[in-house]
Amino acid sequence: MTFAVSRPIDFRSDTITTPDGAMRSAMAAAEVGDNVIDTDPTIGELERRTASTLGMEAALWTPSGTMANLIALSLHLRRGDRFLAPRNAHVLTNELGSAAWLAGGMPDPLEHDGGPGRPSPRTVRTAAGTREGPYYTLRTTLLCLENTHNAAGGAITPPDEHAQLVAAARDVGLKVHLDGARLWNAAAALDLPPAALTVGVDSVSACFSKGLGAPVGSVLAGSAEFIEQARRMRQMLGGGVRQGGVLAAACLLALDRVGELATDHANAKTLATGLAELGWDVSEPQTNIVLADVPDVQLALEQLRGIGILALPMAGKVRFVLHRNVSADDVDEALRRIKEGGR
Amino acid sequence: MTFAVSRPIDFRSDTITTPDGAMRSAMAAAEVGDNVIDTDPTIGELERRTASTLGMEAALWTPSGTMANLIALSLHLRRGDRFLAPRNAHVLTNELGSAAWLAGGMPDPLEHDGGPGRPSPRTVRTAAGTREGPYYTLRTTLLCLENTHNAAGGAITPPDEHAQLVAAARDVGLKVHLDGARLWNAAAALDLPPAALTVGVDSVSACFSKGLGAPVGSVLAGSAEFIEQARRMRQMLGGGVRQGGVLAAACLLALDRVGELATDHANAKTLATGLAELGWDVSEPQTNIVLADVPDVQLALEQLRGIGILALPMAGKVRFVLHRNVSADDVDEALRRIKEGGR
Amino acid sequence: MTFAVSRPIDFRSDTITTPDGAMRSAMAAAEVGDNVIDTDPTIGELERRTASTLGMEAALWTPSGTMANLIALSLHLRRGDRFLAPRNAHVLTNELGSAAWLAGGMPDPLEHDGGPGRPSPRTVRTAAGTREGPYYTLRTTLLCLENTHNAAGGAITPPDEHAQLVAAARDVGLKVHLDGARLWNAAAALDLPPAALTVGVDSVSACFSKGLGAPVGSVLAGSAEFIEQARRMRQMLGGGVRQGGVLAAACLLALDRVGELATDHANAKTLATGLAELGWDVSEPQTNIVLADVPDVQLALEQLRGIGILALPMAGKVRFVLHRNVSADDVDEALRRIKEGGR
Amino acid sequence: MTFAVSRPIDFRSDTITTPDGAMRSAMAAAEVGDNVIDTDPTIGELERRTASTLGMEAALWTPSGTMANLIALSLHLRRGDRFLAPRNAHVLTNELGSAAWLAGGMPDPLEHDGGPGRPSPRTVRTAAGTREGPYYTLRTTLLCLENTHNAAGGAITPPDEHAQLVAAARDVGLKVHLDGARLWNAAAALDLPPAALTVGVDSVSACFSKGLGAPVGSVLAGSAEFIEQARRMRQMLGGGVRQGGVLAAACLLALDRVGELATDHANAKTLATGLAELGWDVSEPQTNIVLADVPDVQLALEQLRGIGILALPMAGKVRFVLHRNVSADDVDEALRRIKEGGR
Repeated sequence: MTFAVSRPIDFRSDTITTPDGAMRSAMAAAEVGDNVIDTDPTIGELERRTASTLGMEAALWTPSGTMANLIALSLHLRRGDRFLAPRNAHVLTNELGSAAWLAGGMPDPLEHDGGPGRPSPRTVRTAAGTREGPYYTLRTTLLCLENTHNAAGGAITPPDEHAQLVAAARDVGLKVHLDGARLWNAAAALDLPPAALTVGVDSVSACFSKGLGAPVGSVLAGSAEFIEQARRMRQMLGGGVRQGGVLAAACLLALDRVGELATDHANAKTLATGLAELGWDVSEPQTNIVLADVPDVQLALEQLRGIGILALPMAGKVRFVLHRNVSADDVDEALRRIKEGGR
Repeated sequence: MTFAVSRPIDFRSDTITTPDGAMRSAMAAAEVGDNVIDTDPTIGELERRTASTLGMEAALWTPSGTMANLIALSLHLRRGDRFLAPRNAHVLTNELGSAAWLAGGMPDPLEHDGGPGRPSPRTVRTAAGTREGPYYTLRTTLLCLENTHNAAGGAITPPDEHAQLVAAARDVGLKVHLDGARLWNAAAALDLPPAALTVGVDSVSACFSKGLGAPVGSVLAGSAEFIEQARRMRQMLGGGVRQGGVLAAACLLALDRVGELATDHANAKTLATGLAELGWDVSEPQTNIVLADVPDVQLALEQLRGIGILALPMAGKVRFVLHRNVSADDVDEALRRIKEGGR
Repeated sequence: MTFAVSRPIDFRSDTITTPDGAMRSAMAAAEVGDNVIDTDPTIGELERRTASTLGMEAALWTPSGTMANLIALSLHLRRGDRFLAPRNAHVLTNELGSAAWLAGGMPDPLEHDGGPGRPSPRTVRTAAGTREGPYYTLRTTLLCLENTHNAAGGAITPPDEHAQLVAAARDVGLKVHLDGARLWNAAAALDLPPAALTVGVDSVSACFSKGLGAPVGSVLAGSAEFIEQARRMRQMLGGGVRQGGVLAAACLLALDRVGELATDHANAKTLATGLAELGWDVSEPQTNIVLADVPDVQLALEQLRGIGILALPMAGKVRFVLHRNVSADDVDEALRRIKEGGR
Repeated sequence: MTFAVSRPIDFRSDTITTPDGAMRSAMAAAEVGDNVIDTDPTIGELERRTASTLGMEAALWTPSGTMANLIALSLHLRRGDRFLAPRNAHVLTNELGSAAWLAGGMPDPLEHDGGPGRPSPRTVRTAAGTREGPYYTLRTTLLCLENTHNAAGGAITPPDEHAQLVAAARDVGLKVHLDGARLWNAAAALDLPPAALTVGVDSVSACFSKGLGAPVGSVLAGSAEFIEQARRMRQMLGGGVRQGGVLAAACLLALDRVGELATDHANAKTLATGLAELGWDVSEPQTNIVLADVPDVQLALEQLRGIGILALPMAGKVRFVLHRNVSADDVDEALRRIKEGGR
């Protein structure tokens, strides 16, 4: 069956969001400077404001969330240190193994027995192993959390559960890094300030280039001393840019839009409900991601593509991501196409 | 309770075995040469004979099994490649994370759903992921097997199961490395030549310094081309030694003793049966390792030490390893001490 | 002595150049897309056009020149390979050692006996060593050139000398990477197309964020196959960005401005001549960099700063860089301040 | 011209020395234990005695000098740190680049302007650069010395010059590692205790498997805390062995033989004098190495081989190494063959 598909509806990722007119204007008007040998004033403003929003002492702009995570792991881990992360965490499965070969960490993926996207505090304690082993034993030093957890369908770790995981990590001597690429979604869904979700962590990354719509940019936040080291590591990796203020201006505007993510979450619920009514096996979305369990992922993706609907595989399922470039009408239209087109 | 313990019975590891008189004589009489700029003749003989025993084209002596595995992974993996290994494999948990920071691999620990110490072929196929992903996706390239599997209690992967796992790996485009630190035990227990257990692998490591009693030395075997690269990597890691023939002479003698491992296996059965009769929760040993499930591992190890019995923790259990320096009488004596001393 | 300095004249680096109105307009109007999972159309256009300008098959945008060089070295070098580069090359002294720890290369800095900023072909041949050594010997596999050479005062390697160096490298089996951060300056000064200066190389990096005035962005060019690998490595390092077209639009405009660099070169000559007349020990500039030999670099920099003139240390000298944000009038004013202020 | 050469005279390296009867007996009688999970008593004794001999707090046995240096550099250097070493130092040219890719160091080879095999203190100070640069600048943190310096023909750095180099390094904030693979030769030639040549260093490596004739083994010495970290790094690299006492017993005997190296030094003088009388361009040997400058090194080595004399290339020259397996008569015979055979 074929459709006259004028425009595909693109659920592949919230990373495809494009800057709107206001963002482009802000970029065009940005005050800039050389952010390697000086501080670009707009990057400086973004870093200060983001640190405050995330409840951390300092922050550092990076070209990507992958680099923000990579810097964090490189600084937290010594060669060969084991780190814990929920199974299918982005640092384990979507960053090309750089946590291992570059940051030097030996990962231990934990089951999601504490809720979707997170281990239980008990599992963290057990996995960390004996704190004081002999010199020839593996050393576990870091817990990586991810909130929301992408591969678990945008699952939220609420503040209480977050606090218990951090406490468990502390009990067994671990540092904590939070991959908050979509922390804004968790904050918007819970109607909490983002800082409520970072309590007790040593570092947190967050992204402006996903649902918030900025073209380029993430941030790593932590103590002032940690961020000074991160600045050097960013330069080593080739992430030091010059007049990055043109990008930071868009990120600043993005920060004002965290509340707007609620629209994406509502659209996700509409999509999930609609798919369920059509007989799809989908989970109730907590934020802007809908995962569908299908017998053959590649086949389903091709069939969807045939009716003008784009999605991506994720952890053995079909992932639909809602974002500011997909409207409520687009969701309705997508459901209509699926209903008529079958899959 | 205290005992007049004249001599502790040491079940900590078969690595504690010491060379006997014959081995020391062989070492003292070894023909030697500079094995970096020439080939030490005794190392050369060991490498040829071991390659043949393992059914591979060529072999390389290394100072340790950790180095043999490390060289193999360094050569098989490109930066950031994911490799699969059964959960609690030695390369994951007992080599200080060097598979990650040094070989550059991102591990994915697999459940033992194919039997003790091994994944099922289906799990291997699934975990490998889509073979041809876009450039920004993780690449899985290697399956690491371990036979016998230490943390699974010396569990054997029999030839048929081995063949199916290798076939599954091939189907999804993976290379296969076999950590055969205790492959000799599997061969002795099955009464098969070691080469029957290496069919189809790209590389295999094996150790002379465990149950076979040589003081120092392991081997890495593979294709002639692979071993040429391994020789260079050994030198890079500082594993190139000069007149290593003094050690290889002991390893050659060790090779003659594979059959004698059956004694350790019999002793392991005696120990396990005896412990079970005393109410311990132990599994039936397949080779020379007995794992006991106890409520508090550290406490149990201390109590055993108090009655002159040494063991080590392994994967949350108490591990007893049988070896040539523990006799059948020692096992009886150990059981007697446990019976009288309680635990 | 103090001055009423309304505005410092900033010779620190051509990296401080800021985008002008036309560039900002181009950025605001750029067509964009997700450059990780798709191709951003403006980045795509930039990559095609730059590849053509540089005479290479394909090109890849990167956030910085450091990352472009780092990717190139990571791909050209195997672990521990030695690479040759002129002493004080940017990859040796200004990229925080990442050529070693991250790309894994062992550098051999060569004297500038072929002319300012370059070794002689004979030195390249000698330094490469014997091509076919035994397995335990260091392996030299790459020559890194730099044109213009920053620390040698913006020195040009002309096409003939370039060709001889490439030929020498080929004779001894080396690949060639060209760090062309300021290749545009060499092309403008020689009035040649940039491709005339890349003949025979395996890869070349070039920068849009220096004299050409774009805010952010460099490029790595090479064969189509090499660039495919580079795309993956860029992602591993965290250099994959999403709607980077907003930056590429500025880079495209920058490409039109290569000819304008002649103005900077003229200003450099004016500055050098003026400084020489004031008794400074300066070399004749070939492009946009003037190096001054002073008894105490830190003291000289402080004195200059006191009279509103900013410069940076470079290879034991004071470096003045001319660029589009320093006018001919600024140069005159700087000379006036130095004349009146002394140093 | 051909010779009836019954036995080649082997000047290739002192690494080819083989253990004599006394050494083999000591090995056969060595008390041993598992040196990973316990301490092998003979290794323990060797480490204590060597630490004392070298004037350091603690020491660690390693399978090779390459590993001892590699461990030291891995611990002293953070990622990307620059280290200084005399040009042609063993860590730069004979360890397959592992100082870069594995230890993560960016080397800066220094000219031998302080004497053969060493930079001047002034060069060390200059090369270290400004101590407190901005975050984006290379960081120099280590000076590597080599005494005797192999590629400089076994050149000695005497105690006074050593002290001045260490003082210069301290002045500019550098740590100091001493590659003392042939430190014993320097001590024997100067008739000083080895500890007189390690004053002020943070770490020193030394080798038992060169002129002292032990089959396998080196040592790394430093503070107790440093050696604890080194023990872990040795295990990570695969250098942890079990009953290594069989090797340490030979090393202990080797330590008694430092004084006997004077014989090799006398033989080196005889060889050098004889070669000079035959018109060869040789330097006056300070210890056991004679370097000859010839028009074509490969040709000279082949011609020598044709008359039953083995040597190796080193830093563009022919290197003859004297050692306990080459007697004074062998030197006379070699000179006779060269005189009669021409070259």
